[in-house]
Amino acid sequence: MALLLQNMRDTNPLIHNITNVVVTNFTANGLLALGASPVMAYAKEEVADMARIAGALVLNIGTLNEELVESMIVAGLSANEHGVPVLLDPVGAGATPFRTASALRILDRVKVDIVRGNAAEVAQIIGEDMQIKGVDAGETGDLNISQLAVKAAHQLNTIVAITGKEDVITDGRIGWIIENGHSLLTKVTGAGCLLTSVLGAFTAVENDRLTAGMAALAVYGVAAEMAAERKGTEGPGSFQIELLNMLFAITPDDVRQYGRVRPLDRIF
Amino acid sequence: MALLLQNMRDTNPLIHNITNVVVTNFTANGLLALGASPVMAYAKEEVADMARIAGALVLNIGTLNEELVESMIVAGLSANEHGVPVLLDPVGAGATPFRTASALRILDRVKVDIVRGNAAEVAQIIGEDMQIKGVDAGETGDLNISQLAVKAAHQLNTIVAITGKEDVITDGRIGWIIENGHSLLTKVTGAGCLLTSVLGAFTAVENDRLTAGMAALAVYGVAAEMAAERKGTEGPGSFQIELLNMLFAITPDDVRQYGRVRPLDRIF
Amino acid sequence: MALLLQNMRDTNPLIHNITNVVVTNFTANGLLALGASPVMAYAKEEVADMARIAGALVLNIGTLNEELVESMIVAGLSANEHGVPVLLDPVGAGATPFRTASALRILDRVKVDIVRGNAAEVAQIIGEDMQIKGVDAGETGDLNISQLAVKAAHQLNTIVAITGKEDVITDGRIGWIIENGHSLLTKVTGAGCLLTSVLGAFTAVENDRLTAGMAALAVYGVAAEMAAERKGTEGPGSFQIELLNMLFAITPDDVRQYGRVRPLDRIF
Repeated sequence: MALLLQNMRDTNPLIHNITNVVVTNFTANGLLALGASPVMAYAKEEVADMARIAGALVLNIGTLNEELVESMIVAGLSANEHGVPVLLDPVGAGATPFRTASALRILDRVKVDIVRGNAAEVAQIIGEDMQIKGVDAGETGDLNISQLAVKAAHQLNTIVAITGKEDVITDGRIGWIIENGHSLLTKVTGAGCLLTSVLGAFTAVENDRLTAGMAALAVYGVAAEMAAERKGTEGPGSFQIELLNMLFAITPDDVRQYGRVRPLDRIF
Repeated sequence: MALLLQNMRDTNPLIHNITNVVVTNFTANGLLALGASPVMAYAKEEVADMARIAGALVLNIGTLNEELVESMIVAGLSANEHGVPVLLDPVGAGATPFRTASALRILDRVKVDIVRGNAAEVAQIIGEDMQIKGVDAGETGDLNISQLAVKAAHQLNTIVAITGKEDVITDGRIGWIIENGHSLLTKVTGAGCLLTSVLGAFTAVENDRLTAGMAALAVYGVAAEMAAERKGTEGPGSFQIELLNMLFAITPDDVRQYGRVRPLDRIF
Repeated sequence: MALLLQNMRDTNPLIHNITNVVVTNFTANGLLALGASPVMAYAKEEVADMARIAGALVLNIGTLNEELVESMIVAGLSANEHGVPVLLDPVGAGATPFRTASALRILDRVKVDIVRGNAAEVAQIIGEDMQIKGVDAGETGDLNISQLAVKAAHQLNTIVAITGKEDVITDGRIGWIIENGHSLLTKVTGAGCLLTSVLGAFTAVENDRLTAGMAALAVYGVAAEMAAERKGTEGPGSFQIELLNMLFAITPDDVRQYGRVRPLDRIF
């Protein structure tokens, strides 16, 4: 992970985000702080060109509309053609039929390398019955989070990251559980969306996408813990600012010292 | 108010915002800090579904266009049909004919429960002659703020909240003046927009909408005062962060201790 | 400059921004902190009305699409007709053919008073061969920054400001180099976009647009230095908040004491 974080800061990979209007600023600032170079580009006239030159493409359906979904597909196909990793954040899948259908339509048309969501969103995409409220996570049904991630990875034929109290990332065969993070992340809008873009940034500097994803989850979780422990962090306002500070300041040594990653037991 | 604030944090009501591109992030973070669960959803394909399951629907015309106004009407009609309270923030009404006409069109088509604006915006909507500059408040004409609010409530047949140095909320018959707040609120973009969403959040936990609105104004005003008094708050940057911290930290006791609410004298 | 900053705070000029979805909030808060009155209005139905009553119009193509470019042209023509200064920020010009073409289309249709960009963006617009990556600055080719600015000012027949380690502003004949600023500006998304809007705000209070632009660059650069030196500013999160605080707090005396402005040597 030392290598990946250093590579990020040395090469400043361009991360092309097609994301929602709520989190654009926070996502861009988080990527900049970490060392990546964010770009937001949404118009059908330019997304293929931008995705082609990017180190990763991140698609986020948080405030989707028909036109934006079409842009995502155009960008995704360009990324696929040029070997650029594609990530999908299915924000609020299940909250409305339109969101679920749009997420599935993207997954059908574009080869997605990593899907990141909370348990409820991932469950909705693979047709598991779970209640969700708005864009927030609900309770899992009969499967635990690891089982859900493995099942989704198989069904979607992609790497799946489910984040929550603990984070899981798996290709359906092997995977990791990351124990880092902090509850204040749930009180900052776009904390999950930024994380998906951070996953994208790590895939831009490491071809093994499962390893890249694990590193991203560990770096982000440790940075969140460091932010929460900062003097003066007494609420979600300060926390979001300190999270940006810590994404900027975090060192490979911090991740080695505080990262808590364990392998996922095989389930299926 | 103790009850309402606790209910908010216990039930995390889903607040559906169709708002402007300037304030989405701050609105979402403010609602999250307070204990509500924000969602932004704009597409005609999904707004009826989202409004139906929400605890309140907040419409804000800050960066409106034709398509967005249509989405607001679709969402509003769905909210009306399912008994979900609807709030309208007529940002910049009067600044251009398009804004005024759009606000009136929404009010004509949708049953709005609370309109919140500054004095100039409310005056423009009911055809009172007041000068306004951009989206900022101007001077009132012949009516004082309380009279303007009562007149608007009668004419629009809705609860009206006018915010400024003092806040007024009335159904045209009874009402309240809330003396809390801080001048730094005028230096943070979206402070008014977030307040409208906070009003929405309180209507989601209290059926008496005038009481809900009064509680929201008091909580927000006290939180603003607490934020301004925090060590290190020396300008609008720190203030906006501390406001999020204080919306998260504020207790019923704070509101009881610092809230300054007096009844509105009957005028008409 | 004392006069201009004071005028800004006394008159709160309305600045009409048609800008990208990443920076709207930060731009509005920066302008408010400085003393200007920001408005964002994008719809073709209202941009001519809004631009007409504004003190300046700022066009930013950071997340452009066909419709938005048309709105920019409508607004720009209205501004031209009513003597309102127009500023253009060609974000990411060169990154995709669509961006470059859109910037040129605006420049062709609208009389632009000041173009502000990084070296790569300005070079792309005038057909100088420079590599750029995404929306970030690349290296200059054979021309140094001052030469590039002078050449662009001649070719585009407008004032050109190129910002980077040092900032240059010139009408192609005379000009200034501003040595203020801080490297953390490159780690805050929209720091350049906000600066373009600040340039706009100063043109609203000073008819000599080169002087207005020089004052804006000095004020912004000094505010950035003050923000970086604040206790507790340890990363880009805190820095962006302190920059807002300092735009609010900065006095004419600060600019006189810390501003480092030297005249541009004539080149052509």
